Amino acid sequence: MDGKHDQADYIVSGRYLLPTWRHADRIEDGAVAVLGDAIAAIGSRAELTARFPEAERLHEPAGLVMPGLINTHTHAPMSYLRGIADDLPLMTWLQEHIFPVEQQLDAEMVYLSTLLSIAEMIKSGTTSFCDMYLFAGEVARAADETGIRAWIGEVLYDFDSPSYGKLDNGFAMVRELVSAYRQHPLISITVAPHSVYTCAPTLLERAAELAANGGCLHVVHLAETESEVATCVERYGVRPVQHLHRLGLLESRLLAAHCVHLTEEEMDLLASTQVKVSHCVESNMKLASGAAPIPALIQKGVCVAIGTDGPASNNDVDMFAEMSSVAKVHKVVAMDPTVMDAETTLKCATFNGAMALGAESEIGTLETGKKADLIVLDLDQPHLVPLYNLPSHLVYAARGGDVIHSMINGRLVMKQRHLLSLDEDMAIARMRELSTKVLRIREQAGAAK
Amino acid sequence: MDGKHDQADYIVSGRYLLPTWRHADRIEDGAVAVLGDAIAAIGSRAELTARFPEAERLHEPAGLVMPGLINTHTHAPMSYLRGIADDLPLMTWLQEHIFPVEQQLDAEMVYLSTLLSIAEMIKSGTTSFCDMYLFAGEVARAADETGIRAWIGEVLYDFDSPSYGKLDNGFAMVRELVSAYRQHPLISITVAPHSVYTCAPTLLERAAELAANGGCLHVVHLAETESEVATCVERYGVRPVQHLHRLGLLESRLLAAHCVHLTEEEMDLLASTQVKVSHCVESNMKLASGAAPIPALIQKGVCVAIGTDGPASNNDVDMFAEMSSVAKVHKVVAMDPTVMDAETTLKCATFNGAMALGAESEIGTLETGKKADLIVLDLDQPHLVPLYNLPSHLVYAARGGDVIHSMINGRLVMKQRHLLSLDEDMAIARMRELSTKVLRIREQAGAAK
Repeated sequence: MDGKHDQADYIVSGRYLLPTWRHADRIEDGAVAVLGDAIAAIGSRAELTARFPEAERLHEPAGLVMPGLINTHTHAPMSYLRGIADDLPLMTWLQEHIFPVEQQLDAEMVYLSTLLSIAEMIKSGTTSFCDMYLFAGEVARAADETGIRAWIGEVLYDFDSPSYGKLDNGFAMVRELVSAYRQHPLISITVAPHSVYTCAPTLLERAAELAANGGCLHVVHLAETESEVATCVERYGVRPVQHLHRLGLLESRLLAAHCVHLTEEEMDLLASTQVKVSHCVESNMKLASGAAPIPALIQKGVCVAIGTDGPASNNDVDMFAEMSSVAKVHKVVAMDPTVMDAETTLKCATFNGAMALGAESEIGTLETGKKADLIVLDLDQPHLVPLYNLPSHLVYAARGGDVIHSMINGRLVMKQRHLLSLDEDMAIARMRELSTKVLRIREQAGAAK
Repeated sequence: MDGKHDQADYIVSGRYLLPTWRHADRIEDGAVAVLGDAIAAIGSRAELTARFPEAERLHEPAGLVMPGLINTHTHAPMSYLRGIADDLPLMTWLQEHIFPVEQQLDAEMVYLSTLLSIAEMIKSGTTSFCDMYLFAGEVARAADETGIRAWIGEVLYDFDSPSYGKLDNGFAMVRELVSAYRQHPLISITVAPHSVYTCAPTLLERAAELAANGGCLHVVHLAETESEVATCVERYGVRPVQHLHRLGLLESRLLAAHCVHLTEEEMDLLASTQVKVSHCVESNMKLASGAAPIPALIQKGVCVAIGTDGPASNNDVDMFAEMSSVAKVHKVVAMDPTVMDAETTLKCATFNGAMALGAESEIGTLETGKKADLIVLDLDQPHLVPLYNLPSHLVYAARGGDVIHSMINGRLVMKQRHLLSLDEDMAIARMRELSTKVLRIREQAGAAK
């Protein structure tokens, strides 16, 4: 005890503190002291309560304190389409159900849908998310109001956008957002070209340049489906990862979502260029995109993080459910129960998530000096006893609903499952209203055909 | 309105009643009237409250009333081993972690562990389960005390059992249980030989005879792993399903768990003999057993139900999580997003579950005259709005934790997530105590080697 941090705003404590993804790092009756937006200390509850006697105490006798989960790929505003159409061939789903409604999208729909997804994310343990959709300014507004940490991108592609119209306007919008949020403590603007099959090489190059100049995370969908690969080969003579490589766009700032269909050579390229991968297993299963070669990527040293993808293709944004699927799917694909063990999976959802966003010095583990992004689970649940191993429970047995408190950047955003920075009832009620509008739009689009 | 049922004990109602697995069958502002153990009527809330004015009303304005889920294969008492060892090769897991502890199993451990699993099952929407483990009398005692519907078997195999000792004692125990529970309204005793690789043909034949004479459900693990198939071929010259066929044991009373490794001919055999299949997808993934050919079995007309398998290999007994995995896995295996649609999956977890247990005239849907086994979900959750399609939400978005009320056989066993027939805090506390004993047993077994 060096006496340096004799002040703290909160001491959050529980039966266990798990500051990392490793069971061996747990502290029984452990605590986190929070001052301002950051972690002032971690240690035993006894030690921290003695050291910071005036801090407000949030103690859960049956609680587990751990880092908040990091959702590295989603389309949070797509909650307005959750469950509107499932179990369909991809093109039927997109062309008959998703696109017609998206054409009529407006700012208010994006704002309300994002609020709802943020409510779901906080209530299921996510404290940071990386988003890519339309009307990004509205996504940022919802994130700012609710105090969640977010990396937010306006999707860019070759055709006109319901959000910004012509592509030049899109780039202008991204530049404005970058400038508007440059000093924001929680929100980072990303540059987010949609994919190699919807973006011409010139668009991709221009986006990469903007990302580099703006110091932004660069996000793209990559090698998601067989048809994307076929299209890319047909147009450019090479597969998607090779295509980006030829354009000189593979680099450590790039976060590539999906990466399902990869050759050995493409995996090596991702590894050598330090591209980060956001693995969206439930979306890949539900849309029958395929099983990404995640154990092989990890073996090659690629930083693999986890994303839920959007609530229209998952159909949730629950990272606990996602972890459970990630850990199980790769075992049966490899016919080897030792791959994607619980600690590896938990690391993907926390530390690797931070690294994928370029924020591993700020979030992803609970360490003195890092931002105070943490969650508390209630271990007094029939499905969480007995307790032999924390990562095992977090990956195989815990549910988003077990999270009772959430703190982001030192601010308590959920206490006893009650959201403090967001009116949940209002978000639900407004989405119910909005859904009747969505159905009307889809009907009119159908009738117009 | 025929006036026949002018009496009811309860009217359970909500924003929606979904009496089957079909979205088209939903009733807005629907209700179920319950008299004694059975459903007296279903219809609109207005109609039923007028018809049964004196019934106690349980109305959830944001509720969904639906049939309870049916877990057709589990080992409920294995909760004491939940998470004790994961991510290991099957034989390491069994021989170093599971078997040494099971050798020291006693009646109290089984009773307490079953109580805990029943708490978890009720809290995640299950109202019936089919169990196979040791000390079946203790499983039945826990089920009887808590009022859950159960099919319970004592596992039989060639070696001595920690429960009954010699095989003859095992058969005697099963006969006694059958006789003791013959008149029980909720508990049925099954005959449960473990598998073709742990049971000699004479044991299997003797078990089948007992099942036939006792009018019991006949339950077996079948074709779960490649090694089971190899062992069977080596010993008997044929694969597991063919082996049972030669012995004349494939028939409509047989409920076969897993059925992962099947040839086309074996699938046809299961279909023609009307064997029922309990599909345990999460266990099959986690233990890397393989992906069962479920869409093909359904195509051939086999009744496929769903089971969680035991909490040591899953690691939960949550049927909502299981449905989500079932619907997603087969899409990516087939690379076809239209297989295992939400309604088919929900049917497997409800009506097919009832049929697999020979109880489709009693449970599996909400119909007048059937037993009142129903659950109510709270739809006022961020992940359940908007709501375009009920089966989609139940399979892809809902969680066990969304279930707020549960009624089994006309008895309210959970209200507002509070268990009424079971002391949850006691079950959790006693399991925590038990877990230290389990660790001690495992340590001693390790030291003795």
